[in-house]
Formats: sequence, C-alpha cells, structure tokens
Amino acid sequence: MARARARQDELTKPRGSLGRLEEIAIQVAGITGRDRPCLRHKAVIVMAGDHGVVAEGVSAYPSEVTPQMVLNFLRGGAAINVLARHVGARVVVVDVGVASDIPPQPGLVVKKVAHGTANLRREPAMSREQAVEAIEAGIEVLEQEIERGLDIVATGDMGIGNTTPSAAIAAAVTGLPPSLVTGRGTGVDDRGLALKIQVIEDALARHRPDPKDGLDVLAKVGGFEIGGIAGVILAAAAHRVPVVVDGFISTAGAAVAALLAPQARRYMISGHKSVEVGHRALLSFLQLEPLMDLDLRLGEGTGACLGLSLVEAACKILDEMATFSSAGVSREA
Amino acid sequence: MARARARQDELTKPRGSLGRLEEIAIQVAGITGRDRPCLRHKAVIVMAGDHGVVAEGVSAYPSEVTPQMVLNFLRGGAAINVLARHVGARVVVVDVGVASDIPPQPGLVVKKVAHGTANLRREPAMSREQAVEAIEAGIEVLEQEIERGLDIVATGDMGIGNTTPSAAIAAAVTGLPPSLVTGRGTGVDDRGLALKIQVIEDALARHRPDPKDGLDVLAKVGGFEIGGIAGVILAAAAHRVPVVVDGFISTAGAAVAALLAPQARRYMISGHKSVEVGHRALLSFLQLEPLMDLDLRLGEGTGACLGLSLVEAACKILDEMATFSSAGVSREA
Repeated sequence: MARARARQDELTKPRGSLGRLEEIAIQVAGITGRDRPCLRHKAVIVMAGDHGVVAEGVSAYPSEVTPQMVLNFLRGGAAINVLARHVGARVVVVDVGVASDIPPQPGLVVKKVAHGTANLRREPAMSREQAVEAIEAGIEVLEQEIERGLDIVATGDMGIGNTTPSAAIAAAVTGLPPSLVTGRGTGVDDRGLALKIQVIEDALARHRPDPKDGLDVLAKVGGFEIGGIAGVILAAAAHRVPVVVDGFISTAGAAVAALLAPQARRYMISGHKSVEVGHRALLSFLQLEPLMDLDLRLGEGTGACLGLSLVEAACKILDEMATFSSAGVSREA
Repeated sequence: MARARARQDELTKPRGSLGRLEEIAIQVAGITGRDRPCLRHKAVIVMAGDHGVVAEGVSAYPSEVTPQMVLNFLRGGAAINVLARHVGARVVVVDVGVASDIPPQPGLVVKKVAHGTANLRREPAMSREQAVEAIEAGIEVLEQEIERGLDIVATGDMGIGNTTPSAAIAAAVTGLPPSLVTGRGTGVDDRGLALKIQVIEDALARHRPDPKDGLDVLAKVGGFEIGGIAGVILAAAAHRVPVVVDGFISTAGAAVAALLAPQARRYMISGHKSVEVGHRALLSFLQLEPLMDLDLRLGEGTGACLGLSLVEAACKILDEMATFSSAGVSREA
C-alpha cells in the first residue's frame, strides 16, 4: 500500500485529485499484495435461495419467481447479465437453497443446502449446521472460480422475500428497531411494510439471535443465499481477492462474514448504496463507504458489478498513467 | 420517451428498481429520438486553454503545464486516456487557446482563438468576438466528430488556472458571493485561496458581467476552453447527441450554453459531483443531478468519462434485458 500510495503521487495529476479512485487502488494493492494490481479476470457470483417467510405475505412477488429468474440469469436476459457483459465479468449462478428443484442446466452451480428456509416468524430460518453449510457453499464456489482465474469478485443475490431476513440481520447486528431498517423490497405497499416490520419484530423476539455470533444470526433470521454470500466474502478475503459487495442483501452477508472474521472487512468494497433503508445501517456497522448511489434496489449484484468496473478503472489509473518525470510535466510550484 | 418508459416496465425487474439507470435511458431515448438507443461511438473532447489570471498567483501549477499535459494526452499517458480506454471512448484533444504554440502533432485539433486569455482581474478575459469564436470552435469540433461517428460525447478541460474563471462564472450566474463558490483548484493553500477569492471579487466588480447574457459572462470572466465546451454542448444538443458534462470547469461551460439556449439543458447529463464547492452551485443552477460522487477534482473529462460508461450501461439495460413475457417470469402479485 505504501508503494502504491507513493506511485499515486508520481502520476501526472495533482496529488489526491482522483479522490476515491486513488484510495480504492491503494486498498486493492493492500488486498492483493501487488503495488500495481491488474484486474483481468472478473466474476459476479449470484447466490439464489428461497424464504419460508414469504408465506407471511412479506413480498410483492411469489417464490416461483426465484427459479424463473435463475433461468433468466442462465439465458443471459437479466439486468446482471447485461451489466456483467458491459464490464467484462462472467456471471456465476448458484442454487444454494431455491425451494423448487431446477432441472440441471449448463452453467448452474448446485450447492443446495435445503429447499428454502423455514418461516423465520415461526421457527429459526435454518439449523446452525445448515448455516455452516451455506457459508461453506460460498467458500467452495469462490475457490472453484479462483481456479478459473479470478482477480476481483462481485457478490449478488436472488431470492424472493430476502429483504425480510436482511432487515432482521440489520436489526440484530446493529440493535436498531426493525422499523428503522425495514424497507419496501421489490415494492410492498404501506400495509405490506407494516406487516413486514411486525414479522421481523416477532422473529427477533422469539429467537433472540446473539449479535456477536454470526452463525447464530444467520441461522435464526438469515437465508441460504445470505450465508453463501458470507462464504464468498470470507474465501475472497482469505485468498486476497478484492470483493465488491452489492446492496442490502449482500451487505447482510458481509455483516455475517465480519462477525465471523472481523479482518475480512478490509477486503470488502461497497459497490453502491441501495434505496433500502437498512442498507445504510449495515454500511455504517461495517464502516464501508459505498462507491455509488444510483437509487438501485434490484439486487442480483447489479450495483456491485458497476462498482467492480470503477475498481478496475482505479487500478488501471495506478498502473497505466505516466509519471511526471516520464511525461516531462512540471510539478507543483 | 414514453415508449422507453413503457419498455422499462416490461423488463424482468421490479418496476423502477434500477433507479437512475432507468431515468437516464429514458432521457437518452428522448435526446436521440430512439426508444432503444445504442451508444456505440463514444468520444471525450478535451478543450485546452490558458489563463492570463495565472499571473496573479491563483494556481499551484505554472501555465507551462497546460501544453505539457496536452502532449501527455496525445501520447496516452494522462488519467483521461486511461479512463477513455477503459470505457471504449476516443479522446479528442483541442487547443482552443493554449498560451504557447504547440508543434503540430498527429491527433491535435488546433482551433486557437488566442494565446491564452487576458488577466481577468485587470481586463475582460476576451472580447465578445473571441467568445463567439471559442464557442464556434466547440461546435466545429463536435460536428467533425459526428462525421467520424458519435453516439454520445463527454466534455473535458485542461487549463492551468481555470478554476478561477469557473468560480467567477459560478458567482456571476448564481449571484452567490465568490467566497461561496471558490475552491482550492489543483491545491492552493489558505493564502492562495483568499487571494483567488479577492481576484474574482475584483474581476466581477470591475466588469459587471450580465448574468442573463452567456456571451458577456464568458467574455468578461471566462476562458477559451470554457467557451469551447459550451460550443460542444450546444452542438451536441442541436444534433441530438447526449452530452455528459464533467466537473466544475465543464459545468461552467454548460452554464454558458444554457444561458444561450435554455433547451440545451435537457441534453446534458452530469457525470459526477466534483470536490470544488462552486460545482454544486452550478449544478443547482442547471438543475442537474450528478451520477456519481467520487471526490474527483482533476478535470480532463475524467468524471464524465466514467459517467458515459454508466449511461451506456443504462441504455444496454433498456435494449438487451428480457421482458417478463419473453423470459416466462411471473409479475407482481
């Protein structure tokens, strides 16, 4: 990082004038251990899972949309596919807990822990063993991707109902009341929002997740894709791969990861700030400053994917720009 | 725009969930008159000029850096070159008023109005005729680029000292005191900042530019590259080419353009919010909402270039995503 920082000040621009692009490249230098990191191989890992809590009426969409969107990802028709093509990243689609059985498809990575979580209003979303399995699924996927070549990774999610466990995680880890961290997700109305808050309050009162124990939080009020994302992040940190975290759901996964391994936080880059109100609380819990704020609330890794391109740009600046001496440009008076 | 908006709601995502990306694509549909605009040919036009006011000590760098950086642009070693390569845009470098004579270079577009502006603290920066010439230079360059193929353009600037005329323009058009719109540019210290504010106060008191007359403002307290940028923007609007406006200096050019042709405003997209405090005042004057805030203060078109890639991504979303019916995905309950 010191070498990267010194090089920034040699490049033909006023010192510090590229702001966050300079900081990010220095962070990536630290993550990778290379003072001029080159981010050639890029992937977005989209973790898909379903949620028993959808039975409570917390989502504007039915659970059948989760496998439908998985097929859409595999055919290249979703927003994440368009954005991943735009930034030159591959999309890796993982079934870590979709409720239905998706017929085997080229490109679909199957790491199914179970057919959807239990209804967290009534019982823990999953067992502690399943929480471990979900995280291990994420670790395995990340390590498989490293074998294919991976210089930077973005996280993404698909799971109808998953803003409910994400808000529950946000409330659990920050201690904030559910009403302050719960938003409209894909678009519930006022009654739906009030119900969603009530469901989360009931779940937290019933299960009392230990805010210091990431596995406990994940098991009691989380989701399989959230655990999978936590695993991707932990494995990325362990292998010194920078990881761009998407919005609310991915950041809930990041919070679980940070509870398990606080050092992982410094390997994370927040891609964007979501419209979802609970995202802010999680970002502040993790002390992450998002790169962009485009009023996104889609998930899938869309904001992370755009962020990934900014991180790549930041590293190219560090690597490719001329220095004052090589370009014969005068320095500050 | 209505057709683009209707298509947004058919795509496989919750309505409105891609936030500003949706809005921007709809705006570009309106600008281009195409409901699925394709932004293949992209250019960043960097206008370079020098400023007599540098004699007052308002910049941390000497004027000789302007031609040195022009050569750096032509050799591909500057930040804008790296970012333009990253987003697949060509860089067009224009000498519209550099103080020295730059030896003819492949790729350098020469539209020199004069060898730098006059010192605006003592006399008008340029004559009204020169202001027209600078704007016409920008129009000519944009029209040449259209002949080479141009679907979207980003503006950029190079000119040691040019945050001083930009702050003067910001004060002139908004009526705010110079102290509220003047920043540190490439990095002057507290004394330099106080001097810069005094210089701008003196210039405005001496010349009293008419805040309703873009040519008067440009002539009395502007710069040749700022006029060139105004011309690029006016021509882009006239030819229905979306134009991504960079930071403080480019937005000063955009303000001049908007005074001359208020309709031009709707063809502008603000790429990013600069660190320079006066940029906010100009954005608010133009009612533009920047796409990003990365703490940049370099100019050259760097923020606009990154913004251009976001606009392209937004248009790809609109064009390439599957619809609910084509992908067999269920709609909202």
